[in-house]
Formats: sequence, structure tokens, C-alpha cells
Amino acid sequence: MKYSALNLEEKFARFSDHWSPKIIAQMNDYHFKLVKLQGDFVWHSHADTDEVFITLDGEMSIELRDGKVDLQAGEMFVVPRGVEHKPFAEKECKIMLIEPAGTINTGDAGGDFTAEDDVWV
Amino acid sequence: MKYSALNLEEKFARFSDHWSPKIIAQMNDYHFKLVKLQGDFVWHSHADTDEVFITLDGEMSIELRDGKVDLQAGEMFVVPRGVEHKPFAEKECKIMLIEPAGTINTGDAGGDFTAEDDVWV
Repeated sequence: MKYSALNLEEKFARFSDHWSPKIIAQMNDYHFKLVKLQGDFVWHSHADTDEVFITLDGEMSIELRDGKVDLQAGEMFVVPRGVEHKPFAEKECKIMLIEPAGTINTGDAGGDFTAEDDVWV
Repeated sequence: MKYSALNLEEKFARFSDHWSPKIIAQMNDYHFKLVKLQGDFVWHSHADTDEVFITLDGEMSIELRDGKVDLQAGEMFVVPRGVEHKPFAEKECKIMLIEPAGTINTGDAGGDFTAEDDVWV
């Protein structure tokens, strides 16, 4: 078959590391990435783009300097460009990120959590 | 609370019509839309953009001139720009579409299925 669907669970089964986005699809110049989260990420922002979080399994939170968003499976949130945020998940949580190709996971912050931006799974 | 998550089920509960995309979020110049499908749509293409289908509940198919993609809940497919496609769902199916703001559901085809492109829910 020339065309086939992408199965998200099947893609998640291919990796186990946390905070390391894996690209599964491209739409125009945007990437769809799967990520497994656990624990605290770093405060950061993306100066040039909004960033979409869709929670697929588990629960997570996104701390903002002036608020906090709790996300359960089946919920999404758009972090506006330039807004500092810090993702957190007490237990492992599976999410999809949607953002322009080349977006770095730690944005302006850098540091040990910085992952490669072009890993497909 | 200044910020809150979007709950997809809660959004779906707000409408019942088929083939009529409802915008729930914007990321840069892209819209995230929820749609309920049932039956046959029309053959059409979008000359200027890829289009992402994510199946959230139920099953659907996307016919292509040289193939067919079957999508179950938790699966996604990117229809490449310019590629003719015809969505189909035997029973009601709930999906998310992601595409540039202003994208018309029937693309180049027009006709009775053409829905407004700026309805939020």
C-alpha cells in the first residue's frame, strides 16, 4: 500500500526516553512530534512560534509565570509565542507536540534537556 | 484562571452536524478544527497546503486516486497538498483537522458540502 495511517501507540512503543521529541509527520513546514514526559522540565520560551501540546495518555501540567494549566488525556493547550512555560508530569505522560520544523525543545533556555530537533521515529 | 486546557470531548458535545469543521484553537496561522463525519464526502484537493487528519473516536477512510487509508481512533494521516481525496465514515467518526486558517473543507471542489471556514466552538 502506497499510503498508510500513522498509529500513535505503535510510534510511542518505539522509544522510552523522556523529554526527547520524536517526529512522526510533517505538514507543510510543521512537525508533529511524540514525547514521553516525566518529572520537571526547564523554564523556557519560543520567541518565534506558538506551540501546541495535546495530551494523549496520562496527565501533565504546564506552569506559566502567571498561571498553570493542567492537562488530562484528550486535552490540548496552545502556549503563545514568547510565553515562558515549564512542563511537568508526576507520572509518565504521553503527548503530541505540534510546532514549526526546527523548533528546539528547550527554546531560549538551552541546557542538558536540549534534544536534537530532527529525530524521526 | 487566565489559562485553561481545551477538552476535546467537551468541545465535540457542543455540536452535532456532520462535515462542518469547528475551530477550537489557533497556532500561528494554523487552525485546529473538530469535525464529525458520517457518510461520503466529495472528492477534492487543497492546492496550497497539506492537511492533517487525526481520528479521535470511531473509524474513517480517506480514498485517494491511487490508494486508500483506513484510520482508527489514535491514528493520523497527512494528505499531501494537491492530492485528491475523499473522506468516508460508515458510522459517525470524530476527528481533528489541522490546516492553515482559511482552508475550505471542500478545497477546489465547492458544492453543497462547503462549510464556513471561521466557525469556532
